[in-house]
Amino acid sequence: MACSLDNQPYVVPVGFSYEPGCVYIFSTLGKKIECMRQNPKVCLQADEIRNDSDWLSVIVTGTYLELGEPQYTEQRQHARKLLERHNNWWLNPLAERREQTDDVSIKTVFFRIDINAMSGLRATP
Amino acid sequence: MACSLDNQPYVVPVGFSYEPGCVYIFSTLGKKIECMRQNPKVCLQADEIRNDSDWLSVIVTGTYLELGEPQYTEQRQHARKLLERHNNWWLNPLAERREQTDDVSIKTVFFRIDINAMSGLRATP
Repeated sequence: MACSLDNQPYVVPVGFSYEPGCVYIFSTLGKKIECMRQNPKVCLQADEIRNDSDWLSVIVTGTYLELGEPQYTEQRQHARKLLERHNNWWLNPLAERREQTDDVSIKTVFFRIDINAMSGLRATP
Repeated sequence: MACSLDNQPYVVPVGFSYEPGCVYIFSTLGKKIECMRQNPKVCLQADEIRNDSDWLSVIVTGTYLELGEPQYTEQRQHARKLLERHNNWWLNPLAERREQTDDVSIKTVFFRIDINAMSGLRATP
């Protein structure tokens, strides 16, 4: 996922959950959240690569919406449920960040990217 | 790799070759090249993921330099040599693009990202 501030792009790996029209993502507070709060334009790229001649890639542009409480409590619960299906993968970056900062009170942020455009490429053997 | 135009970020998968201080990349002409010609600020993220608890991720910010001829002929040859080591992976997106556009005269661009900053995270089991 890429965001941009003062035309300096910033790209980070994220896990996500897709629904028609939007993508849900979970994060700790940090550079990317600060960036998207100031400029909600984002871009997301995902791929499945079997080998050099059998792959697909999708690129999405969209708008950041932070699922803060109490306004978005319901949507936040929905996002949490969807993201938890993926084996709690998100616990790892969180644990990693906590280890680095000695701060166990790190805030968690759920957000949604509302999709404006989607395109892709596919190679088949 | 992410670039940004008018604060709209754009992120695409790329192959690259790293040397201390810079990264070499090959591309066809298109949206990302047009973007970086207007705003040379870029960001590159790379990772190696063995599993959920054993991975590393590196993020680089840097500046786009197009290795055009004749000014950068020598650097362009160097980039080509480095990138060809990776099993000609770059022929695939090129072939794909050509198939889509029916245009066999697609221009190839070699460029270098001069690294300004680099950071990373690693998880170990």
